[in-house]
Parts: sequence; structure tokens; C-alpha cells
Amino acid sequence: MAARAICTAALLLLAFVCPSAGLSLDTVREFLTREEDTIVFSLIERARYPINRPAYDPVHLGDGRRLNASFAELFIRESEAVQSKAGRYQSLLEIPFFAYRVPFTLAPPYNFTRELYPAAAFVNVNDAIWSMYFNELLPLLAKTGDDGNYAATVDSDLACLQVLSRRINYGRYVAEVKFRGDQQTYTSLIQAKDRDALMKLLTSEAQEDVVKRRVEKKAIVFGQSITSDGPIETSVNNSSGTDFKVDPSVVYKLYDQWVIPLTKQVEVEYLLHRLD
Amino acid sequence: MAARAICTAALLLLAFVCPSAGLSLDTVREFLTREEDTIVFSLIERARYPINRPAYDPVHLGDGRRLNASFAELFIRESEAVQSKAGRYQSLLEIPFFAYRVPFTLAPPYNFTRELYPAAAFVNVNDAIWSMYFNELLPLLAKTGDDGNYAATVDSDLACLQVLSRRINYGRYVAEVKFRGDQQTYTSLIQAKDRDALMKLLTSEAQEDVVKRRVEKKAIVFGQSITSDGPIETSVNNSSGTDFKVDPSVVYKLYDQWVIPLTKQVEVEYLLHRLD
Repeated sequence: MAARAICTAALLLLAFVCPSAGLSLDTVREFLTREEDTIVFSLIERARYPINRPAYDPVHLGDGRRLNASFAELFIRESEAVQSKAGRYQSLLEIPFFAYRVPFTLAPPYNFTRELYPAAAFVNVNDAIWSMYFNELLPLLAKTGDDGNYAATVDSDLACLQVLSRRINYGRYVAEVKFRGDQQTYTSLIQAKDRDALMKLLTSEAQEDVVKRRVEKKAIVFGQSITSDGPIETSVNNSSGTDFKVDPSVVYKLYDQWVIPLTKQVEVEYLLHRLD
Repeated sequence: MAARAICTAALLLLAFVCPSAGLSLDTVREFLTREEDTIVFSLIERARYPINRPAYDPVHLGDGRRLNASFAELFIRESEAVQSKAGRYQSLLEIPFFAYRVPFTLAPPYNFTRELYPAAAFVNVNDAIWSMYFNELLPLLAKTGDDGNYAATVDSDLACLQVLSRRINYGRYVAEVKFRGDQQTYTSLIQAKDRDALMKLLTSEAQEDVVKRRVEKKAIVFGQSITSDGPIETSVNNSSGTDFKVDPSVVYKLYDQWVIPLTKQVEVEYLLHRLD
């Protein structure tokens, strides 16, 4: 047993020391760009439902009982527990919002390539994402009203949270690739614990601007109403914001104020642990 | 207690006898059109993952144990159980693939309007949808390969199944509206149990053609790669099918061979119970 454990540890280390040829600036950018589509889809789907306040209120059972958690929190905890049992969090790409100690009883085994530096892989900003999503983003997304579809609504919240978490915490992979590309510069800044210089090195305003304009455009294209008449070209230049399923400026703001800054926060934290 | 039960039953009946002004041919069409977007999004998301065969194989634990169910079935059963506990199936719009006898312990109470005729509301074709999805559609959607992300993959299968079930079993609402619009004709056909005549009355090839062409177009618009350069009009006339995240012809086929025929099957079955 002990020998097998050592062997497994050695294999994991080997997998890290010889990282898959798959991780490069190009593959990282491709992943992030593809996640934008998933993020826009998930926001559009959440916006189908009204705000449905009772789902977020700890006094939600209608019989006066006050629980310590809202329906949304209970639902997400239980859903994540099933996903944990099913092995979703074996992949370092996915990080749950709540910690579980359940065995992967449902999961078929799989040896994931470990591309992150083990001592830094734990870095994540899920608490900030949770708070941003429910307190800032959701009120901008959902119309007022209560249609009673609390489970379906919170299920769509969970889809938003999962992709935002995966996208933002992917900053660990971005940082790993950048570190490998210029080990000397990063090593000296990490050793000096120089957060500001690291943040500056990781920032490209021109690139960030491209991303923000692109996600806004995705909200316009994916959130329009398609008819079967007319040519395939979808002309949406003259449409007003109210025609879209989710306001494109909200998606721009999501990236500008939260996704990009939080990703860079993850990158800096990861780097600060990259030599541990 | 007994008095309260009678009162509740009376209220439910009242809610049905005085159906909400919301159900009309227009609102039904609007719902179905909006579901197309959700269906296309969910197919695009499933197509991100390779086929991941071990998730669908009853011998999946790698240690030779054979269970009676695949990972996918176990995962969907457990996820649906959480959703059932959370009250998702209180709304007649949603029908689970597996039956659960769990109390709605998490759910805030809500009085849904009952727009379906109670004795016919149970009609659904979930077994046919399950079999069509896994045996016919999935092999057309997913590329070969195994990336180990079984939980995330099957979670996206569940999203596809849920929206296909909601869309197809919405045939109950379509049939209810059509019945109310021409009670005399429908009543005589129902009393004669004339399935063929009912099917003919429910069929509009011109309308079905509009729907099929529209969903194909949605697959083109939502499945294209968006760049931040260039104008907002997205010109995709000259693109080949391989550029899209899900093959538009597969979405056309899904509606042509399965969604539309199964919906009409639901409509006929519902009508045959409409006078019970």
C-alpha cells in the first residue's frame, strides 16, 4: 500500500514536471475565449427567470422557521455534493463553493494531467465570486417578479457560478504559462513579494479592451431574437438594448469590474505561491 | 385537516376552471420559440466535451464491478432527487426522468396556476426522449475522445434532457390551447378515439418548416466564433459546417425527426385524456 502511494505521488510529480504540451499561451487564450460563450449563455438563461427573491431569503419556508441558510445556499450545497461524489472536483479546473468530504463513489477513475504547481493550485477567489454574483450581478440580470420556479432559477444561478468560477480561477493556468515563459523575471518579483510589479507585468490594457468589446458583442449576437425570415446575416446595429435577452453593457461591466480584476488577483496569488 | 384538504382541492379546481388569461396561442408560441434558444445553447455546451464513453457504460468503476446502471444514470438520478427535494417538479412544466417520493423539504411554497386538465396532465414521453438523446442525438453531437470530465459532461447531458423534456412535453399546453379554441371539433374526434384525424388536425407543415429553418439558423448564429473586430453584423453565409460549435444540420434533424413528431404524440395523447 505504502509503495503504491509513493508510486502514485511520483507519477503525479512526473506529470507535473513533464507538463502536457497542451498548455501554452495559445491554448490558454482559446480556453478563455470559449468560456466567454458559456458565460453569456448562462447569463441569458438566468435572465429568463425573474429575480425570485424568496429563493435568497433565509426565512423561506413560509411557516416562520428561520434557517441559517437561504434556499439558494441549501440547493447549491446539495447539488455540489452530488457533483463532488461524481468526481467533478478531481479536475483542478473545477473548484466547489463549499468543501465536501465525500468519496468519489460514482466516479469512473481518470488520471488528469496536473499542469498547475501543486503548492499553488489551491488558490481561488470563490468567496469573492459568490458575493459579487448574488449582490452585484444578479440584481442587474434579473427582472423583478416571482414565478415560483425557485429550483430551476437557482439551478441556473449555479450554472453561472460554476462557469464564472472556472473562468476566473483559470488565472492559475494563465499565471503558470506566463511564469514558464519568463522564469527569471517572475522569480525575482516573487522572491521580493512585489505584488504591484507582478500585477503590472500581468496587465495588458489593450488585450483587456479586446476581451471586453468581444464579450459585449457576444451578448448582442447570442441574445438577439432570430427569425426564420431574411438572410443569415444578423443585423443588430440599430437595435436598442431592450431587445436583447441580457443587456450587453452588463456583460461588458461584468468583465470590466469583476472577471478581469479577479482573474488577475488569482494570477498574483498563484505566483506568490509558485516557489513554495 | 379534512376541511383544509377539500378547500385546497376546490382551489386547485377553481384555478383550472378559471385558467389564467396567460395561456393563448401567442404565449404558447412565444414559449416554444424561446425554448429553441435554450436547446441550441445546451447542445453547444454538450459538444464542448468529447463523447466520454465510460460515463455511459455500466462497467465503469474500473475495478470490474458491474452495476445495474451507468454513471450517467446514477448521476442524473441523484441530481434529479435534489431538484425534486427543491420542488422543481411542483411546476407541471417540468417532469423528472425518474420518479421520486421525497418531500419538498427545501422548497419555498408557491401556488402555481394549473393550466392543464388534471386527468391529462400526466402525459409525457420522457422514456422516448431519454432513448433518443443517448442513442441517436448524442453520437451526432459529441466528438470521439475521453477527457475524464464525466460529471461535467453528464451534467450538460442533464441540461439537454431537461430542456428537451420541457419543450416536447409542452405539447400538453399546445393541445390544451387548441382544444379550448375549437372544443366541438376536438370533442367529437376524442370521443371517436380517432388518432389519425387528431394528428392531421394538429399538423401544419408550413409552420413546422418555419420552425425547422429557424432552429437551424439559431445553431448558425449562436454556434459561430465571434471576434471583436469587424462590424456587429455577423456574416456566416460562406462558412462551412465545420466552423460551428454544433452542426446546424443536426439541430434541423433533431426538430425534424424527434422534437416535432414527439410533441405531436404528446398532443394526441393529452387530447385522448382531455374528456376523462
